[in-house]
Amino acid sequence: MKRLHRKERVAAILKILTDNPNKVISLGYFSDIFQSARSTLSEDIAIIKGVVENLECGIVETIPGAAGGVKFVPGLSKKEEQQFIEELCSQIKNPSRIIPGGFLYMNDIINSPDIATKIGIIFSQNFRSKDPDYVITVETKGIPIALMTAKALNVPLIIVRRNSKVTEGSTVSINYVSGSSKRIQTMSLSKRSVQKGSKCIFIDDFMKAGGTANGIIELMREFESSVVGIGILIEAFTEGKKLVEDYMSLIKLESVNEETGEIVLTPSGNFKAFK
Amino acid sequence: MKRLHRKERVAAILKILTDNPNKVISLGYFSDIFQSARSTLSEDIAIIKGVVENLECGIVETIPGAAGGVKFVPGLSKKEEQQFIEELCSQIKNPSRIIPGGFLYMNDIINSPDIATKIGIIFSQNFRSKDPDYVITVETKGIPIALMTAKALNVPLIIVRRNSKVTEGSTVSINYVSGSSKRIQTMSLSKRSVQKGSKCIFIDDFMKAGGTANGIIELMREFESSVVGIGILIEAFTEGKKLVEDYMSLIKLESVNEETGEIVLTPSGNFKAFK
Repeated sequence: MKRLHRKERVAAILKILTDNPNKVISLGYFSDIFQSARSTLSEDIAIIKGVVENLECGIVETIPGAAGGVKFVPGLSKKEEQQFIEELCSQIKNPSRIIPGGFLYMNDIINSPDIATKIGIIFSQNFRSKDPDYVITVETKGIPIALMTAKALNVPLIIVRRNSKVTEGSTVSINYVSGSSKRIQTMSLSKRSVQKGSKCIFIDDFMKAGGTANGIIELMREFESSVVGIGILIEAFTEGKKLVEDYMSLIKLESVNEETGEIVLTPSGNFKAFK
Repeated sequence: MKRLHRKERVAAILKILTDNPNKVISLGYFSDIFQSARSTLSEDIAIIKGVVENLECGIVETIPGAAGGVKFVPGLSKKEEQQFIEELCSQIKNPSRIIPGGFLYMNDIINSPDIATKIGIIFSQNFRSKDPDYVITVETKGIPIALMTAKALNVPLIIVRRNSKVTEGSTVSINYVSGSSKRIQTMSLSKRSVQKGSKCIFIDDFMKAGGTANGIIELMREFESSVVGIGILIEAFTEGKKLVEDYMSLIKLESVNEETGEIVLTPSGNFKAFK
Protein backbone atom coordinates (compact mmCIF):
# COMPACT_ATOMS: atom_id res chain seq x y z
CA MET A 1 0.00 0.00 0.00
CA LYS A 2 1.24 3.51 -0.71
CA ARG A 3 2.23 5.59 2.32
CA LEU A 4 -0.75 7.49 3.69
CA HIS A 5 -1.01 10.87 5.36
CA ARG A 6 -2.37 10.97 8.89
CA LYS A 7 -5.82 12.14 7.72
CA GLU A 8 -6.00 9.12 5.43
CA ARG A 9 -4.41 6.65 7.86
CA VAL A 10 -6.76 7.58 10.71
CA ALA A 11 -9.76 6.93 8.47
CA ALA A 12 -8.28 3.67 7.21
CA ILE A 13 -7.59 2.38 10.73
CA LEU A 14 -11.09 3.27 11.88
CA LYS A 15 -12.52 1.45 8.83
CA ILE A 16 -10.56 -1.69 9.69
CA LEU A 17 -11.60 -1.50 13.36
CA THR A 18 -15.27 -0.96 12.40
CA ASP A 19 -15.22 -3.97 10.09
CA ASN A 20 -13.95 -6.11 12.96
CA PRO A 21 -16.08 -5.26 15.99
CA ASN A 22 -14.81 -6.51 19.34
CA LYS A 23 -11.66 -7.96 17.76
CA VAL A 24 -8.28 -7.01 19.18
CA ILE A 25 -5.99 -5.87 16.37
CA SER A 26 -2.33 -5.45 17.20
CA LEU A 27 -0.44 -2.25 16.50
CA GLY A 28 2.06 -4.49 14.73
CA TYR A 29 -0.59 -5.33 12.14
CA PHE A 30 -1.26 -1.66 11.44
CA SER A 31 2.46 -0.94 11.50
CA ASP A 32 2.98 -3.56 8.78
CA ILE A 33 0.28 -2.40 6.42
CA PHE A 34 0.81 1.34 6.89
CA GLN A 35 4.60 1.27 7.36
CA SER A 36 4.28 3.56 10.36
CA ALA A 37 6.03 3.64 13.71
CA ARG A 38 4.08 2.48 16.75
CA SER A 39 4.37 5.92 18.34
CA THR A 40 2.72 7.44 15.26
CA LEU A 41 -0.01 4.81 15.38
CA SER A 42 -0.62 5.48 19.07
CA GLU A 43 -1.32 9.10 18.19
CA ASP A 44 -3.65 7.92 15.40
CA ILE A 45 -5.54 5.74 17.88
CA ALA A 46 -5.94 8.68 20.24
CA ILE A 47 -7.54 10.68 17.40
CA ILE A 48 -9.80 7.73 16.56
CA LYS A 49 -10.94 7.47 20.18
CA GLY A 50 -12.03 11.09 19.97
CA VAL A 51 -13.89 10.55 16.69
CA VAL A 52 -15.79 7.55 18.03
CA GLU A 53 -16.63 9.43 21.21
CA ASN A 54 -17.94 12.34 19.17
CA LEU A 55 -20.07 10.11 16.97
CA GLU A 56 -21.31 8.28 20.10
CA CYS A 57 -21.10 5.02 18.17
CA GLY A 58 -19.18 2.93 20.70
CA ILE A 59 -15.78 2.95 22.34
CA VAL A 60 -12.22 2.24 21.25
CA GLU A 61 -10.26 0.24 23.81
CA THR A 62 -6.52 -0.12 24.02
CA ILE A 63 -5.33 -3.45 25.42
CA PRO A 64 -1.77 -3.30 26.81
CA GLY A 65 0.76 -6.12 26.85
CA ALA A 66 2.17 -8.65 24.41
CA ALA A 67 -1.26 -9.88 23.24
CA GLY A 68 -2.48 -6.32 23.23
CA GLY A 69 -3.69 -3.96 20.59
CA VAL A 70 -6.77 -1.94 19.95
CA LYS A 71 -10.39 -2.83 19.43
CA PHE A 72 -13.61 -1.11 18.50
CA VAL A 73 -16.63 -1.93 20.64
CA PRO A 74 -19.77 -0.88 18.78
CA GLY A 75 -22.43 0.89 20.78
CA LEU A 76 -25.37 3.25 20.72
CA SER A 77 -25.70 6.18 23.10
CA LYS A 78 -28.56 6.09 25.60
CA LYS A 79 -30.33 8.76 23.57
CA GLU A 80 -30.00 6.99 20.24
CA GLU A 81 -31.04 3.70 21.83
CA GLN A 82 -34.18 5.24 23.29
CA GLN A 83 -35.06 6.92 20.02
CA PHE A 84 -34.55 3.70 18.12
CA ILE A 85 -36.72 1.61 20.48
CA GLU A 86 -39.45 4.27 20.47
CA GLU A 87 -39.44 4.32 16.67
CA LEU A 88 -39.72 0.54 16.65
CA CYS A 89 -42.67 0.74 19.06
CA SER A 90 -44.49 3.22 16.87
CA GLN A 91 -43.85 1.07 13.78
CA ILE A 92 -45.20 -2.00 15.56
CA LYS A 93 -48.30 -0.15 16.84
CA ASN A 94 -49.75 0.00 13.33
CA PRO A 95 -53.14 -1.83 13.49
CA SER A 96 -52.55 -3.30 10.01
CA ARG A 97 -50.00 -5.58 11.67
CA ILE A 98 -52.67 -7.50 13.54
CA ILE A 99 -53.10 -11.06 12.30
CA PRO A 100 -56.18 -13.15 13.22
CA GLY A 101 -55.51 -14.74 16.58
CA GLY A 102 -54.02 -11.56 17.99
CA PHE A 103 -50.55 -12.07 16.51
CA LEU A 104 -48.47 -9.27 15.03
CA TYR A 105 -46.84 -9.36 11.62
CA MET A 106 -43.22 -8.49 12.32
CA ASN A 107 -41.20 -10.01 9.45
CA ASP A 108 -40.41 -6.71 7.74
CA ILE A 109 -38.97 -5.42 11.03
CA ILE A 110 -37.01 -8.42 12.27
CA ASN A 111 -35.59 -9.19 8.81
CA SER A 112 -34.47 -5.62 8.12
CA PRO A 113 -30.65 -5.61 8.05
CA ASP A 114 -30.55 -2.06 9.48
CA ILE A 115 -32.89 -2.79 12.36
CA ALA A 116 -31.29 -6.17 13.10
CA THR A 117 -27.86 -4.49 13.17
CA LYS A 118 -28.98 -1.96 15.78
CA ILE A 119 -30.73 -4.56 17.90
CA GLY A 120 -27.56 -6.66 17.74
CA ILE A 121 -25.47 -3.73 18.96
CA ILE A 122 -27.87 -3.07 21.85
CA PHE A 123 -27.79 -6.72 22.96
CA SER A 124 -24.00 -6.85 22.58
CA GLN A 125 -23.68 -3.80 24.83
CA ASN A 126 -25.67 -5.55 27.51
CA PHE A 127 -23.99 -8.94 27.35
CA ARG A 128 -20.38 -8.11 26.51
CA SER A 129 -19.37 -8.15 30.17
CA LYS A 130 -20.51 -11.79 30.40
CA ASP A 131 -17.68 -12.69 28.01
CA PRO A 132 -19.81 -15.17 26.03
CA ASP A 133 -18.41 -17.86 23.73
CA TYR A 134 -21.50 -18.10 21.51
CA VAL A 135 -24.79 -16.49 20.66
CA ILE A 136 -27.53 -19.10 20.38
CA THR A 137 -31.02 -18.92 18.88
CA VAL A 138 -33.79 -21.25 17.70
CA GLU A 139 -34.87 -21.20 14.09
CA THR A 140 -36.31 -19.14 12.41
CA LYS A 141 -37.39 -15.65 13.30
CA GLY A 142 -34.69 -14.84 15.83
CA ILE A 143 -31.84 -15.63 13.43
CA PRO A 144 -31.24 -12.15 11.92
CA ILE A 145 -31.06 -10.35 15.29
CA ALA A 146 -29.02 -13.20 16.80
CA LEU A 147 -26.54 -13.09 13.91
CA MET A 148 -26.08 -9.35 14.31
CA THR A 149 -25.58 -9.77 18.07
CA ALA A 150 -22.95 -12.44 17.37
CA LYS A 151 -21.27 -10.13 14.86
CA ALA A 152 -21.13 -7.23 17.33
CA LEU A 153 -19.73 -9.55 20.02
CA ASN A 154 -17.34 -11.27 17.59
CA VAL A 155 -18.48 -14.78 18.54
CA PRO A 156 -19.99 -17.62 16.47
CA LEU A 157 -23.73 -18.04 16.08
CA ILE A 158 -25.45 -21.33 16.90
CA ILE A 159 -28.84 -22.12 15.40
CA VAL A 160 -30.93 -24.74 17.17
CA ARG A 161 -33.28 -26.65 14.85
CA ARG A 162 -36.87 -27.64 15.50
CA ASN A 163 -36.19 -31.09 14.04
CA SER A 164 -32.96 -32.96 13.66
CA LYS A 165 -31.66 -32.78 10.09
CA VAL A 166 -29.40 -35.14 8.22
CA THR A 167 -26.91 -32.34 7.53
CA GLU A 168 -26.32 -31.80 11.25
CA GLY A 169 -24.72 -35.18 11.92
CA SER A 170 -25.42 -36.65 15.36
CA THR A 171 -27.57 -34.36 17.43
CA VAL A 172 -28.79 -33.90 20.96
CA SER A 173 -32.55 -33.42 21.10
CA ILE A 174 -34.76 -32.42 23.98
CA ASN A 175 -38.51 -32.22 24.41
CA TYR A 176 -39.92 -29.33 26.34
CA VAL A 177 -43.33 -27.92 27.14
CA SER A 178 -44.04 -24.53 25.66
CA GLY A 179 -44.92 -22.22 28.55
CA SER A 180 -48.01 -20.65 26.98
CA SER A 181 -49.59 -23.30 24.72
CA LYS A 182 -48.53 -26.22 26.95
CA ARG A 183 -47.69 -28.21 23.83
CA ILE A 184 -44.71 -30.52 23.70
CA GLN A 185 -42.02 -29.21 21.38
CA THR A 186 -38.66 -30.51 20.29
CA MET A 187 -35.35 -28.81 19.75
CA SER A 188 -32.26 -30.35 18.33
CA LEU A 189 -28.63 -29.33 18.06
CA SER A 190 -25.65 -30.89 16.36
CA LYS A 191 -23.26 -32.49 18.87
CA ARG A 192 -20.26 -30.79 17.37
CA SER A 193 -21.69 -27.29 17.50
CA VAL A 194 -20.88 -26.34 21.13
CA GLN A 195 -17.69 -26.97 23.08
CA LYS A 196 -18.07 -28.25 26.65
CA GLY A 197 -18.01 -25.56 29.30
CA SER A 198 -19.17 -22.73 27.04
CA LYS A 199 -21.06 -19.60 28.00
CA CYS A 200 -23.94 -18.70 25.67
CA ILE A 201 -26.24 -15.75 25.16
CA PHE A 202 -29.73 -16.74 24.01
CA ILE A 203 -31.35 -14.25 21.62
CA ASP A 204 -34.91 -14.45 20.31
CA ASP A 205 -37.48 -12.19 18.73
CA PHE A 206 -40.36 -12.99 21.06
CA MET A 207 -41.02 -14.45 24.50
CA LYS A 208 -44.29 -15.24 26.14
CA ALA A 209 -44.02 -17.53 29.17
CA GLY A 210 -40.38 -18.36 28.49
CA GLY A 211 -40.73 -22.05 27.57
CA THR A 212 -38.28 -21.83 24.69
CA ALA A 213 -35.69 -19.97 26.77
CA ASN A 214 -36.08 -22.62 29.43
CA GLY A 215 -35.62 -25.32 26.79
CA ILE A 216 -32.39 -23.71 25.63
CA ILE A 217 -31.08 -23.65 29.20
CA GLU A 218 -31.85 -27.37 29.48
CA LEU A 219 -30.30 -28.10 26.08
CA MET A 220 -27.11 -26.26 27.04
CA ARG A 221 -26.93 -28.32 30.21
CA GLU A 222 -26.73 -31.41 27.94
CA PHE A 223 -23.65 -29.78 26.39
CA GLU A 224 -22.22 -29.07 29.88
CA SER A 225 -22.57 -25.42 28.97
CA SER A 226 -24.57 -22.55 30.37
CA VAL A 227 -26.78 -19.68 29.28
CA VAL A 228 -25.29 -16.52 30.81
CA GLY A 229 -27.73 -14.06 29.28
CA ILE A 230 -31.12 -13.92 27.54
CA GLY A 231 -32.04 -11.09 25.19
CA ILE A 232 -35.56 -10.80 23.77
CA LEU A 233 -36.84 -8.23 21.30
CA ILE A 234 -40.49 -8.32 22.45
CA GLU A 235 -41.73 -9.85 25.66
CA ALA A 236 -45.48 -10.40 25.89
CA PHE A 237 -47.48 -9.85 29.03
CA THR A 238 -48.49 -13.13 30.70
CA GLU A 239 -50.57 -13.94 33.74
CA GLY A 240 -48.35 -15.47 36.37
CA LYS A 241 -44.58 -15.75 36.52
CA LYS A 242 -42.30 -16.26 33.54
CA LEU A 243 -40.40 -19.54 33.44
CA VAL A 244 -37.08 -17.68 33.32
CA GLU A 245 -36.14 -14.86 35.62
CA ASP A 246 -32.96 -13.30 34.38
CA TYR A 247 -33.53 -11.81 30.93
CA MET A 248 -33.68 -8.46 29.19
CA SER A 249 -36.22 -7.35 26.62
CA LEU A 250 -36.32 -4.23 24.48
CA ILE A 251 -40.10 -3.95 24.22
CA LYS A 252 -42.95 -5.04 26.47
CA LEU A 253 -46.19 -5.95 24.71
CA GLU A 254 -49.18 -5.46 27.00
CA SER A 255 -52.10 -6.32 24.74
CA VAL A 256 -53.39 -6.63 21.19
CA ASN A 257 -57.08 -5.86 20.67
CA GLU A 258 -58.27 -7.43 17.41
CA GLU A 259 -61.57 -5.54 17.49
CA THR A 260 -60.38 -2.01 18.10
CA GLY A 261 -56.97 -2.49 16.49
CA GLU A 262 -55.27 -1.18 19.60
CA ILE A 263 -51.77 -2.47 20.30
CA VAL A 264 -50.35 -1.50 23.68
CA LEU A 265 -46.59 -1.71 24.05
CA THR A 266 -43.77 0.23 25.67
CA PRO A 267 -39.98 0.25 25.68
CA SER A 268 -38.84 -2.08 28.47
CA GLY A 269 -36.20 0.41 29.53
CA ASN A 270 -34.02 -2.17 31.27
CA PHE A 271 -31.20 -2.11 28.75
CA LYS A 272 -27.98 -0.28 29.33
CA ALA A 273 -26.06 2.01 26.98
CA PHE A 274 -22.35 2.71 27.08
CA LYS A 275 -22.93 6.37 27.97
CA MET B 1 -21.16 17.81 17.95
CA LYS B 2 -17.97 19.73 18.49
CA ARG B 3 -16.21 20.99 15.36
CA LEU B 4 -13.78 18.43 14.03
CA HIS B 5 -10.47 18.78 12.23
CA ARG B 6 -10.20 17.33 8.75
CA LYS B 7 -8.30 14.24 9.98
CA GLU B 8 -11.17 13.55 12.40
CA ARG B 9 -13.97 14.49 10.02
CA VAL B 10 -12.68 12.27 7.21
CA ALA B 11 -12.63 9.30 9.59
CA ALA B 12 -16.10 10.15 10.94
CA ILE B 13 -17.61 10.42 7.43
CA LEU B 14 -16.05 7.11 6.38
CA LYS B 15 -17.43 5.49 9.55
CA ILE B 16 -20.95 6.73 8.73
CA LEU B 17 -20.67 5.60 5.11
CA THR B 18 -19.36 2.17 6.16
CA ASP B 19 -22.24 1.71 8.59
CA ASN B 20 -24.69 2.40 5.76
CA PRO B 21 -23.52 0.36 2.78
CA ASN B 22 -25.11 1.21 -0.56
CA LYS B 23 -27.12 4.06 0.96
CA VAL B 24 -26.91 7.51 -0.60
CA ILE B 25 -26.18 10.10 2.09
CA SER B 26 -26.53 13.73 1.11
CA LEU B 27 -23.75 16.25 1.60
CA GLY B 28 -26.42 18.32 3.38
CA TYR B 29 -26.62 15.66 6.09
CA PHE B 30 -22.86 15.76 6.66
CA SER B 31 -22.92 19.54 6.46
CA ASP B 32 -25.49 19.64 9.28
CA ILE B 33 -23.75 17.32 11.66
CA PHE B 34 -20.21 18.58 11.03
CA GLN B 35 -21.06 22.26 10.43
CA SER B 36 -18.86 22.27 7.37
CA ALA B 37 -19.22 23.89 3.96
CA ARG B 38 -20.06 21.63 1.03
CA SER B 39 -16.81 22.55 -0.68
CA THR B 40 -14.89 21.36 2.38
CA LEU B 41 -16.91 18.15 2.45
CA SER B 42 -16.25 17.53 -1.24
CA GLU B 43 -12.54 17.62 -0.49
CA ASP B 44 -13.13 15.22 2.43
CA ILE B 45 -14.96 12.84 0.10
CA ALA B 46 -12.06 12.94 -2.38
CA ILE B 47 -9.70 11.90 0.43
CA ILE B 48 -12.10 9.11 1.47
CA LYS B 49 -12.23 7.80 -2.09
CA GLY B 50 -8.46 7.47 -1.99
CA VAL B 51 -8.52 5.68 1.36
CA VAL B 52 -11.12 3.15 0.21
CA GLU B 53 -9.21 2.60 -3.02
CA ASN B 54 -6.03 1.98 -1.05
CA LEU B 55 -7.70 -0.47 1.31
CA GLU B 56 -9.35 -2.18 -1.70
CA CYS B 57 -12.52 -2.55 0.35
CA GLY B 58 -15.03 -1.22 -2.15
CA ILE B 59 -15.76 2.06 -3.89
CA VAL B 60 -17.13 5.44 -2.89
CA GLU B 61 -19.57 6.85 -5.44
CA THR B 62 -20.69 10.43 -5.77
CA ILE B 63 -24.24 10.87 -7.09
CA PRO B 64 -24.85 14.32 -8.59
CA GLY B 65 -28.11 16.24 -8.59
CA ALA B 66 -30.82 17.18 -6.10
CA ALA B 67 -31.29 13.63 -4.79
CA GLY B 68 -27.56 13.15 -4.88
CA GLY B 69 -24.92 12.56 -2.30
CA VAL B 70 -22.30 9.98 -1.63
CA LYS B 71 -22.42 6.27 -0.94
CA PHE B 72 -20.06 3.52 0.03
CA VAL B 73 -20.31 0.31 -1.97
CA PRO B 74 -18.57 -2.49 -0.05
CA GLY B 75 -16.37 -4.82 -2.03
CA LEU B 76 -13.46 -7.17 -1.96
CA SER B 77 -10.62 -7.00 -4.44
CA LYS B 78 -10.19 -9.92 -6.83
CA LYS B 79 -7.13 -11.01 -4.88
CA GLU B 80 -8.83 -10.92 -1.49
CA GLU B 81 -11.89 -12.68 -2.90
CA GLN B 82 -9.79 -15.50 -4.32
CA GLN B 83 -7.84 -15.88 -1.09
CA PHE B 84 -11.04 -15.97 0.91
CA ILE B 85 -12.71 -18.60 -1.30
CA GLU B 86 -9.55 -20.72 -1.30
CA GLU B 87 -9.39 -20.56 2.50
CA LEU B 88 -13.03 -21.60 2.65
CA CYS B 89 -12.30 -24.53 0.35
CA SER B 90 -9.44 -25.73 2.49
CA GLN B 91 -11.59 -25.42 5.64
CA ILE B 92 -14.36 -27.44 4.02
CA LYS B 93 -11.95 -30.15 2.77
CA ASN B 94 -11.40 -31.41 6.32
CA PRO B 95 -12.51 -35.10 6.35
CA SER B 96 -13.96 -34.68 9.85
CA ARG B 97 -16.77 -32.70 8.21
CA ILE B 98 -18.15 -35.78 6.49
CA ILE B 99 -21.50 -36.87 7.89
CA PRO B 100 -22.94 -40.35 7.16
CA GLY B 101 -24.77 -40.13 3.85
CA GLY B 102 -21.99 -38.09 2.27
CA PHE B 103 -23.15 -34.74 3.65
CA LEU B 104 -20.79 -32.09 4.94
CA TYR B 105 -21.10 -30.37 8.30
CA MET B 106 -21.01 -26.68 7.45
CA ASN B 107 -22.81 -24.91 10.32
CA ASP B 108 -19.69 -23.41 11.86
CA ILE B 109 -18.83 -21.87 8.49
CA ILE B 110 -22.20 -20.60 7.30
CA ASN B 111 -23.13 -19.23 10.74
CA SER B 112 -19.86 -17.39 11.26
CA PRO B 113 -20.63 -13.65 11.20
CA ASP B 114 -17.23 -12.88 9.64
CA ILE B 115 -17.55 -15.44 6.86
CA ALA B 116 -21.20 -14.57 6.21
CA THR B 117 -20.26 -10.88 5.96
CA LYS B 118 -17.63 -11.57 3.30
CA ILE B 119 -19.91 -13.90 1.34
CA GLY B 120 -22.60 -11.22 1.47
CA ILE B 121 -20.19 -8.63 0.07
CA ILE B 122 -19.15 -10.96 -2.76
CA PHE B 123 -22.77 -11.67 -3.73
CA SER B 124 -23.66 -7.98 -3.47
CA GLN B 125 -20.81 -7.13 -5.84
CA ASN B 126 -22.20 -9.52 -8.39
CA PHE B 127 -25.86 -8.58 -8.15
CA ARG B 128 -25.77 -4.85 -7.45
CA SER B 129 -26.13 -4.00 -11.15
CA LYS B 130 -29.47 -5.88 -11.20
CA ASP B 131 -30.84 -3.20 -8.87
CA PRO B 132 -32.76 -5.71 -6.72
CA ASP B 133 -35.62 -4.79 -4.35
CA TYR B 134 -35.15 -7.78 -2.05
CA VAL B 135 -32.87 -10.63 -1.16
CA ILE B 136 -34.86 -13.84 -0.69
CA THR B 137 -33.92 -17.15 0.92
CA VAL B 138 -35.60 -20.29 2.28
CA GLU B 139 -35.21 -21.19 5.93
CA THR B 140 -32.86 -22.11 7.56
CA LYS B 141 -29.25 -22.50 6.58
CA GLY B 142 -29.08 -19.78 3.93
CA ILE B 143 -30.35 -17.06 6.27
CA PRO B 144 -27.03 -15.71 7.61
CA ILE B 145 -25.41 -15.30 4.18
CA ALA B 146 -28.67 -13.95 2.72
CA LEU B 147 -28.98 -11.39 5.51
CA MET B 148 -25.42 -10.19 4.95
CA THR B 149 -26.05 -9.94 1.20
CA ALA B 150 -29.17 -7.88 1.91
CA LYS B 151 -27.19 -5.66 4.27
CA ALA B 152 -24.46 -5.03 1.70
CA LEU B 153 -27.10 -4.25 -0.95
CA ASN B 154 -29.19 -2.15 1.46
CA VAL B 155 -32.43 -4.02 0.69
CA PRO B 156 -34.82 -6.00 2.92
CA LEU B 157 -34.45 -9.74 3.44
CA ILE B 158 -37.35 -12.11 2.82
CA ILE B 159 -37.38 -15.53 4.45
CA VAL B 160 -39.57 -18.19 2.85
CA ARG B 161 -40.89 -20.77 5.32
CA ARG B 162 -41.16 -24.51 4.83
CA ASN B 163 -44.64 -24.49 6.40
CA SER B 164 -47.11 -21.69 6.74
CA LYS B 165 -47.08 -20.25 10.27
CA VAL B 166 -49.80 -18.44 12.15
CA THR B 167 -47.55 -15.40 12.66
CA GLU B 168 -47.24 -14.87 8.91
CA GLY B 169 -50.91 -14.01 8.30
CA SER B 170 -52.31 -15.14 4.94
CA THR B 171 -49.69 -16.85 2.86
CA VAL B 172 -49.10 -18.09 -0.64
CA SER B 173 -47.85 -21.68 -0.68
CA ILE B 174 -46.52 -23.75 -3.53
CA ASN B 175 -45.59 -27.37 -3.84
CA TYR B 176 -42.54 -28.26 -5.84
CA VAL B 177 -40.50 -31.33 -6.58
CA SER B 178 -36.98 -31.27 -5.22
CA GLY B 179 -34.61 -31.78 -8.13
CA SER B 180 -32.39 -34.42 -6.53
CA SER B 181 -34.59 -36.42 -4.16
CA LYS B 182 -37.73 -36.05 -6.30
CA ARG B 183 -39.76 -35.53 -3.13
CA ILE B 184 -42.64 -33.07 -3.00
CA GLN B 185 -41.82 -30.11 -0.82
CA THR B 186 -43.74 -27.03 0.23
CA MET B 187 -42.73 -23.42 0.58
CA SER B 188 -44.83 -20.67 1.96
CA LEU B 189 -44.57 -16.90 2.09
CA SER B 190 -46.66 -14.22 3.74
CA LYS B 191 -48.79 -12.33 1.20
CA ARG B 192 -47.68 -8.97 2.54
CA SER B 193 -43.97 -9.67 2.32
CA VAL B 194 -43.32 -8.84 -1.35
CA GLN B 195 -44.64 -5.91 -3.38
CA LYS B 196 -45.92 -6.69 -6.88
CA GLY B 197 -43.41 -6.17 -9.63
CA SER B 198 -40.33 -6.65 -7.45
CA LYS B 199 -36.92 -7.91 -8.46
CA CYS B 200 -35.36 -10.45 -6.09
CA ILE B 201 -32.00 -12.08 -5.63
CA PHE B 202 -32.21 -15.65 -4.33
CA ILE B 203 -29.37 -16.63 -1.99
CA ASP B 204 -28.81 -20.11 -0.56
CA ASP B 205 -26.01 -22.09 1.01
CA PHE B 206 -26.27 -25.15 -1.18
CA MET B 207 -27.68 -26.23 -4.54
CA LYS B 208 -27.84 -29.67 -6.03
CA ALA B 209 -30.22 -29.98 -8.98
CA GLY B 210 -31.76 -26.55 -8.39
CA GLY B 211 -35.27 -27.62 -7.32
CA THR B 212 -35.46 -25.06 -4.53
CA ALA B 213 -34.23 -22.25 -6.77
CA ASN B 214 -36.83 -23.27 -9.30
CA GLY B 215 -39.49 -23.27 -6.58
CA ILE B 216 -38.54 -19.73 -5.58
CA ILE B 217 -38.85 -18.58 -9.20
CA GLU B 218 -42.33 -20.09 -9.31
CA LEU B 219 -43.27 -18.59 -5.93
CA MET B 220 -42.14 -15.13 -7.06
CA ARG B 221 -44.31 -15.51 -10.15
CA GLU B 222 -47.29 -15.84 -7.78
CA PHE B 223 -46.29 -12.44 -6.39
CA GLU B 224 -45.98 -11.05 -9.94
CA SER B 225 -42.31 -10.61 -9.16
CA SER B 226 -39.15 -12.04 -10.61
CA VAL B 227 -35.86 -13.58 -9.58
CA VAL B 228 -33.12 -11.54 -11.27
CA GLY B 229 -30.17 -13.37 -9.75
CA ILE B 230 -29.28 -16.57 -7.92
CA GLY B 231 -26.24 -16.80 -5.64
CA ILE B 232 -25.19 -20.13 -4.14
CA LEU B 233 -22.33 -20.76 -1.73
CA ILE B 234 -21.71 -24.38 -2.75
CA GLU B 235 -23.05 -26.06 -5.86
CA ALA B 236 -22.85 -29.83 -5.94
CA PHE B 237 -22.00 -31.79 -9.02
CA THR B 238 -25.04 -33.50 -10.54
CA GLU B 239 -25.51 -35.82 -13.48
CA GLY B 240 -27.55 -34.06 -16.10
CA LYS B 241 -28.60 -30.43 -16.38
CA LYS B 242 -29.46 -28.20 -13.45
CA LEU B 243 -33.06 -27.01 -13.29
CA VAL B 244 -31.92 -23.37 -13.36
CA GLU B 245 -29.41 -21.97 -15.80
CA ASP B 246 -28.51 -18.50 -14.71
CA TYR B 247 -26.82 -18.64 -11.31
CA MET B 248 -23.46 -18.02 -9.71
CA SER B 249 -21.77 -20.17 -7.11
CA LEU B 250 -18.64 -19.56 -5.08
CA ILE B 251 -17.57 -23.18 -4.71
CA LYS B 252 -18.13 -26.28 -6.81
CA LEU B 253 -18.30 -29.57 -4.91
CA GLU B 254 -17.28 -32.47 -7.11
CA SER B 255 -17.47 -35.41 -4.74
CA VAL B 256 -17.39 -36.61 -1.14
CA ASN B 257 -15.88 -40.04 -0.53
CA GLU B 258 -17.06 -41.39 2.83
CA GLU B 259 -14.55 -44.23 2.80
CA THR B 260 -11.36 -42.37 1.99
CA GLY B 261 -12.46 -39.06 3.52
CA GLU B 262 -11.63 -37.27 0.31
CA ILE B 263 -13.63 -34.13 -0.47
CA VAL B 264 -13.08 -32.69 -3.93
CA LEU B 265 -14.06 -29.07 -4.41
CA THR B 266 -12.78 -25.98 -6.21
CA PRO B 267 -13.54 -22.26 -6.34
CA SER B 268 -16.14 -21.72 -9.07
CA GLY B 269 -14.28 -18.67 -10.29
CA ASN B 270 -17.30 -17.15 -12.04
CA PHE B 271 -17.79 -14.25 -9.63
CA LYS B 272 -16.66 -10.75 -10.37
CA ALA B 273 -14.75 -8.33 -8.17
CA PHE B 274 -14.79 -4.55 -8.40
CA LYS B 275 -11.10 -4.45 -9.37
